[in-house]
Amino acid sequence: MKHLKLTIGYDGTAYGGWQLQPNRTSVQGLVEAALAELAGQRVVLHGSGRTDAGVHARAQVASCAATLSLKPATVRRALNAHLPVEIRILRVQEVDAAFHARFSAKGKEYRYQIDVGAVADPFLCRYAWHHPRPLDVPAMRRAARLLQGRHDFAALSAKPMRPVESTVRTISRLAITRAGQLLVISIQADGFLYKMVRTIVGALVKVGEGKLTGDEMRELLRAGKRVPLVVTAPAHGLFLWRAIYKR
Amino acid sequence: MKHLKLTIGYDGTAYGGWQLQPNRTSVQGLVEAALAELAGQRVVLHGSGRTDAGVHARAQVASCAATLSLKPATVRRALNAHLPVEIRILRVQEVDAAFHARFSAKGKEYRYQIDVGAVADPFLCRYAWHHPRPLDVPAMRRAARLLQGRHDFAALSAKPMRPVESTVRTISRLAITRAGQLLVISIQADGFLYKMVRTIVGALVKVGEGKLTGDEMRELLRAGKRVPLVVTAPAHGLFLWRAIYKR
Repeated sequence: MKHLKLTIGYDGTAYGGWQLQPNRTSVQGLVEAALAELAGQRVVLHGSGRTDAGVHARAQVASCAATLSLKPATVRRALNAHLPVEIRILRVQEVDAAFHARFSAKGKEYRYQIDVGAVADPFLCRYAWHHPRPLDVPAMRRAARLLQGRHDFAALSAKPMRPVESTVRTISRLAITRAGQLLVISIQADGFLYKMVRTIVGALVKVGEGKLTGDEMRELLRAGKRVPLVVTAPAHGLFLWRAIYKR
Repeated sequence: MKHLKLTIGYDGTAYGGWQLQPNRTSVQGLVEAALAELAGQRVVLHGSGRTDAGVHARAQVASCAATLSLKPATVRRALNAHLPVEIRILRVQEVDAAFHARFSAKGKEYRYQIDVGAVADPFLCRYAWHHPRPLDVPAMRRAARLLQGRHDFAALSAKPMRPVESTVRTISRLAITRAGQLLVISIQADGFLYKMVRTIVGALVKVGEGKLTGDEMRELLRAGKRVPLVVTAPAHGLFLWRAIYKR
């Protein structure tokens, strides 16, 4: 029995998200099917976290145990031969039996791309939310600073299907950078609530539009209740950038 | 009557190329339909050149004459509202009646993207030809130098549907640059024959694979006949980068 760590990149446009589900094609389902083809039996994959329908991953991490005699590089090639081109196994590593993509993760980083050009870049339309109206980026950066650290993010997330024990998370880094007509919001935290990144992006965009102040956003956070003003940014601008492990 | 110069970007993946044709959706057809909607009558667009099915344009240029009272920026917005997101009117300018996107062009630049990573980048799979086997880039650069200047490119193009007067063209610049796992071949010339860029890329890749020497390529060019060894690189790696005009 081998324990494997897979690093997976995917363009989520055509998929129903990471997690296995009935009636929709999921990335997990396709990778598990490719693994089953190789191992000759069902293999269960554990992802570092779920990504919703339409969300991309630069580097999702998943772990599994499988009876395979092939070398990691051969497993990578064989899996890629079974998968659609939008899903690529970037790396396969043998790991300790104790490694679990979700429970061993110290944190994760997500990035959200906003195309702020007056005219959308046609090569970014699958990968960025087009927001042509001007945004006050310095105000967004000041508001972003207020979100860093340990807070209850109930007001900046969506109700999950299963209730969670705590809605307190620690954001260790929240940076807003600009490259050409692309505004990139990077968020690193020890964990993420359901739709937390897209809701934070929705709130920061309201700040950028001058419809919400940083203080009002902090008040919202304290009150712990989501308000209709804060919308969830669309899925196609979001990337699971990396999962962070010890070492 | 106004004379307009349109700069158009498009992701060519889903289209049957630039040129109007029966039974396939063309970029020209869609932009002409959007213009007709605005002008209330048929408008004929002249592109700087054709792009084949699946080829992209960072900045195609097209000209037309139309009876329109709207300002250029308003025309741009109205056209974009009528077009699919993969086709964007980047700029609309009023020009002199003498301007013609094709006949006024001094030259054009195309770029071809090759993904040379061992594993394809899933976010480049629509925009780059994946070539995982190693390429001798210095050898490709030496061969590229032999193609610069004025030559008969009959051997490095495909037979067009209508015969052309001359197959002699002048390449003013042919550069090969590397950025991450992307190898970019940029070709600037006074004009291009049918499938000339994709055939030159096919030949340079054979040089990179060690299956064709620079001298053999030069001999091919002299003989003026295409050989089976030289394949046409796939459409999805090709971008019409810009059309070049005086001033």
